[in-house]
Amino acid sequence: MTDFTTRSAMNDTTFAVLGTGGIGRRTLEVSQHKDGLTPVAACDRHGVAMDFDGLDVEELLEATEGNIDSGPGTDAPRGTDASRDDDLETDGGAAASSGVKQHGENAGVVASAQARPSEDPIQEIIDHGDGIDAVLLALPNYEHDFIPRVADRFVAGGYAGVLVDVLKRSRVIGMLDEREEAFEDAGITFVCGAGATPGFLTGAAALAAQSFVEVESVDIWWGVGLKSGYEDNRGTVREDIAHLPEYDIDTARTLSEDEIEAVIDDHDGVLEFDDMEHADDVLLERAGICDAEDVTVGGILDVERDEKPTTTTVSVTGTTFDGETGTNTFELDDATSMAANVNGPAIGYLKTAVRRNRAGEYGVFGPAELMPGF
Amino acid sequence: MTDFTTRSAMNDTTFAVLGTGGIGRRTLEVSQHKDGLTPVAACDRHGVAMDFDGLDVEELLEATEGNIDSGPGTDAPRGTDASRDDDLETDGGAAASSGVKQHGENAGVVASAQARPSEDPIQEIIDHGDGIDAVLLALPNYEHDFIPRVADRFVAGGYAGVLVDVLKRSRVIGMLDEREEAFEDAGITFVCGAGATPGFLTGAAALAAQSFVEVESVDIWWGVGLKSGYEDNRGTVREDIAHLPEYDIDTARTLSEDEIEAVIDDHDGVLEFDDMEHADDVLLERAGICDAEDVTVGGILDVERDEKPTTTTVSVTGTTFDGETGTNTFELDDATSMAANVNGPAIGYLKTAVRRNRAGEYGVFGPAELMPGF
Repeated sequence: MTDFTTRSAMNDTTFAVLGTGGIGRRTLEVSQHKDGLTPVAACDRHGVAMDFDGLDVEELLEATEGNIDSGPGTDAPRGTDASRDDDLETDGGAAASSGVKQHGENAGVVASAQARPSEDPIQEIIDHGDGIDAVLLALPNYEHDFIPRVADRFVAGGYAGVLVDVLKRSRVIGMLDEREEAFEDAGITFVCGAGATPGFLTGAAALAAQSFVEVESVDIWWGVGLKSGYEDNRGTVREDIAHLPEYDIDTARTLSEDEIEAVIDDHDGVLEFDDMEHADDVLLERAGICDAEDVTVGGILDVERDEKPTTTTVSVTGTTFDGETGTNTFELDDATSMAANVNGPAIGYLKTAVRRNRAGEYGVFGPAELMPGF
Repeated sequence: MTDFTTRSAMNDTTFAVLGTGGIGRRTLEVSQHKDGLTPVAACDRHGVAMDFDGLDVEELLEATEGNIDSGPGTDAPRGTDASRDDDLETDGGAAASSGVKQHGENAGVVASAQARPSEDPIQEIIDHGDGIDAVLLALPNYEHDFIPRVADRFVAGGYAGVLVDVLKRSRVIGMLDEREEAFEDAGITFVCGAGATPGFLTGAAALAAQSFVEVESVDIWWGVGLKSGYEDNRGTVREDIAHLPEYDIDTARTLSEDEIEAVIDDHDGVLEFDDMEHADDVLLERAGICDAEDVTVGGILDVERDEKPTTTTVSVTGTTFDGETGTNTFELDDATSMAANVNGPAIGYLKTAVRRNRAGEYGVFGPAELMPGF
């Protein structure tokens, strides 16, 4: 056994962001606050910025502000089947901001002096994978298997490193699991659901469970106030609508923007969700915390206020070794935005996955599996 | 890079417990509830039980119940300088229970059919270190450098594996740090302060910090009700008294039991502590969460009630990337005992340290450093 993973090496991580919508942009921004984390590439469907000495994040964000390449009529990253879906607009690649917009050849990331147009931006990043420790897939999940198929391209392209997504749907985990052997052979460590929920909150549940020898239930309840952030997060709103009893992913995908507005108006701007299909359940079961069926996820989204309509809380109820039953709780301050709670944890899980990858641990991991192995 | 750490191998962990006082006994008990964790050795100052097919924990705990080898007049584990301190009684090796007691040659762990007397039980465990993935040092820290000196013996004996302690004092971390190079050369992964606090609660603070790009303060506040557990935890009570303004470690060490009772009576059974010297501060700084000086630790100990006198809470205040200030909180249900909150996390950190050790990561780690590397 050799000590090949020194701490200084651990602290030097290069990463790329696929998708420069809300999550991608904010991850670049938050990474500026973290030590030893160097963004080296970012792309959207039309262009790519790459600099292995480190991107100038400030320039990139300023040049592209209000210039996110997406919205009805734009297409998905080339080289993916999703490029057929012309009317899709979701969070990762989306965000038709209210600022200045450019269209055509200078739309999107290419508005940055560091970027250039590309016929296949994702392939360019794959081709430079040797210099990239981790890739955040901040792409909209156009279709159920969109992210898994992007992962396939990384496998096919010989990438060996970390892939991280911030997906929410339970069924995507199963699709990634089917690829576990391919990831292991390739040397890929894939972390799925590494945003706020799942991600931050499943990590909290795994921690809170440590008082107990038997966990009875995990209750995840979130509040999001999204007035000023609404334009930047239309994809998330569309995805959330798919969780309403009257909709599913397919019907939500086909809604026009006007129809989405109508749904929101019908609910007076406040959407409440109970018992969502949220990957927290399968991710907590994977980590050995509890059975998937013992996990419930719900929350309230208010698109007409920035104040959270309810406090985001994780409640873990279980039995201690000495036979007592109790509920441990983890609460996020209402002042912490969804954005803050997605991007900090995503970067944290990304960094720890790089550490695992360097130690030779490959395959598919949920966030709670990256917590101390309780 | 090879995939030498398969999940099945990760799940198969052998461990030893040094010290069969409260923490040692309960760790053995709680480990029965965990998968893939096999206790193979346990010792106190006079004897050792060892079975590489797995100890019969039930027999060992039953045979030794009310028969903990300690109390005034007994001595420290042989082969350590602390064996000079005859009047010491602390949690790890302590616990003069109210049950049936045996003294003399059959005192302590040797009351178990699996154990036998030993002139140097710790050395016997070191000599069998090849079959032991991890060792929990559930020994009382007789002197500041007692645990560090026990670690020295493991280094000298050629042990390569995990050592875990559940210490509380900040200054011990520094002593362990001085040994970092020796641990690295030996192939030892040392986790310090892996109990409830530090340990569980520093882990919670590291997690709660993920909403923020800058942490302003971490406030750890604990409540312990210790009526029925008092006899088993005299060492902890003595250690806590050392945190009162009128005492320090040296003066608390020399208190007789009557004097301790008098201190408790003076406070009507309820001891309140503010601004304790608790390793949470240095451990959070090590993990890059905040500066040690921004951490405060306090709490209330009630030895006349089992109900917690106050709710154990971790509050982390910080600033988000988008400029908001907030406080995230983690609360343990009052029904979860100190014991439950020490032993679950201790085992969790032990297991994750074994994983790190197998990956070639050696040296000194705090619990928060074993959380996802935010």
